[in-house]
Amino acid sequence: MNKLFNQPLKVVNAGLSSFAENLTLAGGDVIGLNWQPPALGDIDGGLALASLIRHPLVEQANAYAFQKYLSAQPVLVDVMSAAEAIDAMARRKLILHAGPPIAWTAMCGPVKGAIIGAILFEGWAATHEAAERLVLDGGVEFEPCHHYGAVGPMAGIISPSMPLWVIENKTNGRRAYSNFNEGLGKVLRFGANNDEVLQRLHWMKQELAPALKATLKVLGEVELKPMMAQALHMGDEVHNRNAAATGLLIKRLLPALLACGLPLETVQRVTAFIVGNDHFFLNLSMAACKAMTDAAHNVPFSSMVTVMARNGVNFGIRMSGTGDQWFQAPANPVEGLFFPGYGVEDAAADLGDSAITETAGVGGFAMASSPAIVKFVGGTPADATANSRRMQAITIGGNPAFTLPPLNFAPTAAGIDARKVVDRSILPVINTGIAHKQAGVGQIGAGITTAPMAGFIEAIRALAEHI
Amino acid sequence: MNKLFNQPLKVVNAGLSSFAENLTLAGGDVIGLNWQPPALGDIDGGLALASLIRHPLVEQANAYAFQKYLSAQPVLVDVMSAAEAIDAMARRKLILHAGPPIAWTAMCGPVKGAIIGAILFEGWAATHEAAERLVLDGGVEFEPCHHYGAVGPMAGIISPSMPLWVIENKTNGRRAYSNFNEGLGKVLRFGANNDEVLQRLHWMKQELAPALKATLKVLGEVELKPMMAQALHMGDEVHNRNAAATGLLIKRLLPALLACGLPLETVQRVTAFIVGNDHFFLNLSMAACKAMTDAAHNVPFSSMVTVMARNGVNFGIRMSGTGDQWFQAPANPVEGLFFPGYGVEDAAADLGDSAITETAGVGGFAMASSPAIVKFVGGTPADATANSRRMQAITIGGNPAFTLPPLNFAPTAAGIDARKVVDRSILPVINTGIAHKQAGVGQIGAGITTAPMAGFIEAIRALAEHI
Repeated sequence: MNKLFNQPLKVVNAGLSSFAENLTLAGGDVIGLNWQPPALGDIDGGLALASLIRHPLVEQANAYAFQKYLSAQPVLVDVMSAAEAIDAMARRKLILHAGPPIAWTAMCGPVKGAIIGAILFEGWAATHEAAERLVLDGGVEFEPCHHYGAVGPMAGIISPSMPLWVIENKTNGRRAYSNFNEGLGKVLRFGANNDEVLQRLHWMKQELAPALKATLKVLGEVELKPMMAQALHMGDEVHNRNAAATGLLIKRLLPALLACGLPLETVQRVTAFIVGNDHFFLNLSMAACKAMTDAAHNVPFSSMVTVMARNGVNFGIRMSGTGDQWFQAPANPVEGLFFPGYGVEDAAADLGDSAITETAGVGGFAMASSPAIVKFVGGTPADATANSRRMQAITIGGNPAFTLPPLNFAPTAAGIDARKVVDRSILPVINTGIAHKQAGVGQIGAGITTAPMAGFIEAIRALAEHI
Repeated sequence: MNKLFNQPLKVVNAGLSSFAENLTLAGGDVIGLNWQPPALGDIDGGLALASLIRHPLVEQANAYAFQKYLSAQPVLVDVMSAAEAIDAMARRKLILHAGPPIAWTAMCGPVKGAIIGAILFEGWAATHEAAERLVLDGGVEFEPCHHYGAVGPMAGIISPSMPLWVIENKTNGRRAYSNFNEGLGKVLRFGANNDEVLQRLHWMKQELAPALKATLKVLGEVELKPMMAQALHMGDEVHNRNAAATGLLIKRLLPALLACGLPLETVQRVTAFIVGNDHFFLNLSMAACKAMTDAAHNVPFSSMVTVMARNGVNFGIRMSGTGDQWFQAPANPVEGLFFPGYGVEDAAADLGDSAITETAGVGGFAMASSPAIVKFVGGTPADATANSRRMQAITIGGNPAFTLPPLNFAPTAAGIDARKVVDRSILPVINTGIAHKQAGVGQIGAGITTAPMAGFIEAIRALAEHI
């Protein structure tokens, strides 16, 4: 012992940094190891994790699930009303919402506001009060979009007569859906439900959707992965920034829109609406991502995460090997920039199905491709690149269909492995908009958040029980 | 002496690297300084440079010229025929070409081919042979586009009835012009002149130009700098890559195009043409750059370069303080990637007015913004960033209107100072397409080249004589 302490010491400190600081103050040479126990020290979680790490069944299942994800070919095939696309919605007063399941009484302001708006839009009630009474009387059912292969940004409200994008994975024939993007300002997805919002929804149903359906009939199917890949080379990460992707979409749609015999006024209104909304592609990106991750779902023993979604209260994930079970935890706060006049006390909790983009390896995972967005969400281009690199530590592999120019065209990190998240204490990073907590105020900022750890630990414990 | 050589030596070697190599082989510790004498060792050039370095008249003139460049506001205001826009072209059989002045007999294949095409297009001759005879008989005059405030990519041929973009610098009221981009494949700017090319030119004159003129009448003026700035954040460098900028332009033009009462078929053809050509914005970018650098021209004693242009044989520059004098040198070869089946032996020399983009601080100077293009011209994203950084050593300042996300939103290096080029032996870098040396074959590659040093030395000597 004396011998040890009589020579110059080189110390590696794992754990509390205060130990290292004392040694440094005493003139010691210390490397502070940035280490945390797996599963944040949760013993059962750690034991479950230990039983799954390098387990051949899990390894094989993940390789298989990841291959299914990689080989997905999401293609835009049609526009339909929700009732046409989703059987259950034709038969019941069913409204879909973002995130994991949640009861009306627990819902946050923007989601409640959007639901009221949807009920008015459907004509199930004539006033806000009547709509709320209908809900309290049990006259409306609520379910997550994800229960029907659908996704919606922010509140993510889909009611039966709303138009949906229909995306088909050509590899397995399964379909995914998303609603249409309404633009910015007062919009249903942020909980607004005034006349302006409802009139826009009616126009989208009556003029926009038929026009786009006719356009697709002329144009034929539109492959979405190449468009997303190209947008990643044009400063988009196809979650919070879709300016380039929307431009690429316009270039594809436009000649067909002009060729389907619609009245000039319709063409003008449709064109003005799409060119005026740089987020128009977002919902297509989300549905394409849903189709890709859905392809990897339900592979027994796989720890690949196939859904991440927020309902404004809880963050829910689904994992391939645990089927339709949700693992939930309270949503983490969003670190970001607020628009003038707003602050963190005004913000709703993290909200929306749009984290499906990160689940599929784009959005925050591809942030290196979108240095310009870091000004919008706060941070530097170096932060963006670091985020994309860090995600390589918790993913199964890289997706060569999506490459990142600033990382010398490295593929995006994709296929979140819940084991790696729990083992390495690195949380999936998510780019997101920030909604006001009151219905209808709208977007008040944007920023970066993470998926909460608790859901991943729970998922790992559930998977360990399967094995 | 003995004392010197009896201690361990640390050697700095300036000049031939073979001296350093010998020392290294003998076990010495050598730093090889990457140094060249200024003006490539040209004694008169070096003396002229010495008289200008830190000269207060030059410093003041450059600051003034640079300010004029920075404050330029190039705005798209109209579409006109060349004869309407440029007086001299209404009165004479005058054809404008890219680069510095050159006689017919000295011109390269693509330029000759494009001139023959322009003569046929104008109806001044009915056959190739008659067109060539007309030229040999002196029936057609040739002058550089730059002599009339105009720019054209590659051959850069502008004849009287061709439509031009009309750009006005709102700061000084002066106008700049560029022809329309024809797309890829068989096109006049690469020297093709067959029926397909001529028919397209007739269509551009008869249908495209009037439609765009009408569109601008509805839309009003279009500021080009913000569009270029946004495109720099979307992977364009607005010289060799204009995909995002073309998308942004389409979004601006489209609602107005739909609102000007044109027949649907016209709208369809115009739309199909523009959405089918990712280079459509290039000519607008060039004319905007011409307007910006033109604002800095003719400032007495300024060593700021205001024109760089190639005629397929020589590379010519103009400098602000030496007015309309051209300084020429044989064009440097293009290092790049050739399309399959072609090689360097097929290539025409560096060609076109498009180096006006680099003169204005974009193109190769902004290559960091366009990592995706490095695959097209050969190289890595790191090369692109290094190029943008290196240009800071030969420029007067940065242009805060054009920022580069991968350099943490640093402004582009802009305002080439001919003194710095000669002093530091760093040549302006230029992204460029590569034309086949025979007329009409078209583009056979793309790459990176540099402006040749000799023109800068000559310019410096001329400026020294003024002082």
